[in-house]
Amino acid sequence: ADPANGRKLARQCQTCHGLDGIARIPIAPHLAGESQIYLERQLKAFRSGERQHEMMTVVAKDLTDQQISDVAAWYASIKISVTLPDE
Amino acid sequence: ADPANGRKLARQCQTCHGLDGIARIPIAPHLAGESQIYLERQLKAFRSGERQHEMMTVVAKDLTDQQISDVAAWYASIKISVTLPDE
Repeated sequence: ADPANGRKLARQCQTCHGLDGIARIPIAPHLAGESQIYLERQLKAFRSGERQHEMMTVVAKDLTDQQISDVAAWYASIKISVTLPDE
Repeated sequence: ADPANGRKLARQCQTCHGLDGIARIPIAPHLAGESQIYLERQLKAFRSGERQHEMMTVVAKDLTDQQISDVAAWYASIKISVTLPDE
């Protein structure tokens, strides 16, 4: 998988998910730091129709396995850290 | 929604997703900082069978709308920050 190529492919994701994987709209999930295996699995599920979403079904339809692997590698390469709310 | 109650409910999520929303296994997504609307939507999709997953279908089956709202509020209350990979 080539995260640098994935970063280029992620231009088509950025309106909703951000190029940094931080979602720009509340109906979309953050993708930053999600695992390669999870991201590939979801893109393939959207592509096959197993998982359905009006936008994602269209986006995933024409992606090759290599493109899916690359774009997953981009988002998986981002590190995240968390801050818990005060008690 | 009551994030404090959601934190208690999240005990059943923590083996895979972490109480802090950082996934402990690669097939599970991080949930930290995901939006209330996204988290509720996914739990309800698992509950209805619209989205399928061996484990999540079972977990979501018996959750009430209030419990879904509360556990979503817990994970949504966690702040995340990202670090992009070096160029």
